[in-house]
Amino acid sequence: MIEWRFGIIARMKDAIQDLYPEATAQCYGCGRLNEHGLQIKSYVEGDEYVCVFRPKPYHTAIEGFVYGGLIASLIDCHSTGSAASAIAQDRGETLPVRTVTASLHVDYLAPTPIDGELIVRARAIEVKGRKAVIESSLFAGGQETARGRVVAVAVPDDFGLK
Amino acid sequence: MIEWRFGIIARMKDAIQDLYPEATAQCYGCGRLNEHGLQIKSYVEGDEYVCVFRPKPYHTAIEGFVYGGLIASLIDCHSTGSAASAIAQDRGETLPVRTVTASLHVDYLAPTPIDGELIVRARAIEVKGRKAVIESSLFAGGQETARGRVVAVAVPDDFGLK
Repeated sequence: MIEWRFGIIARMKDAIQDLYPEATAQCYGCGRLNEHGLQIKSYVEGDEYVCVFRPKPYHTAIEGFVYGGLIASLIDCHSTGSAASAIAQDRGETLPVRTVTASLHVDYLAPTPIDGELIVRARAIEVKGRKAVIESSLFAGGQETARGRVVAVAVPDDFGLK
Repeated sequence: MIEWRFGIIARMKDAIQDLYPEATAQCYGCGRLNEHGLQIKSYVEGDEYVCVFRPKPYHTAIEGFVYGGLIASLIDCHSTGSAASAIAQDRGETLPVRTVTASLHVDYLAPTPIDGELIVRARAIEVKGRKAVIESSLFAGGQETARGRVVAVAVPDDFGLK
């Protein structure tokens, strides 16, 4: 099923991760309450989910290029955030549904320059029950340098996180 | 082609990453010269490549469990290190060949507890020319919680890193 979706929280200016309850806002990748973390933020923009991130100089792989683990982290947290919004929309809920990653796939298409903003654009290509499939592309200086596919699953209600 | 290989640098006590030349030892994940980084180390152990890593308390996903991006980073850098050794062995060279990740896949099988050592065990299941395919499992407290598959490619000699 391919279907481009409009997020119901598209009118909100908050990042999706800033709407998570405190109990799920500790993630090193995207938790607003993790002061050591990357503080990845995802925003709804039309039928896409968009993340902008500026790597630190030390997030290097080889000199001048971004470390692949950071790219994987961006794609992971941005995709679970996107899935959180997409599943909420599918359920008719207004707040994001906390999700976890079932699988993460990243294709590294080209070296990613470190000296600028990275933009990840994602779409929910499937939402079915507790599961969402998110495909994304990472751009540096307008060039697509990595592509991601994440299967994310909503955390069960009895997991103690609500 | 499935073939378990014995690393030729199995007798060395150094981590594979500690044998990289300075120009490629800046990686945030595994570079010995990146003081901000994770300093991931891979060792040859029989026909396997082994990485032991103790996450910091702030490497959290939800409370008590490891952030998936860190797991992806461990699998990524440990696999490129394993590939560096496996490709060197295939070429009859004694020092690891610096590699980059072409693709990374991680299946998250279960939540990974944060309060202990993580062990990643990897094998080279294919080595062909510049390419190696590395499969790995991550264990926490003896339980396999994630599984990885990485395609790594040797950096061309003219990339300026030798």
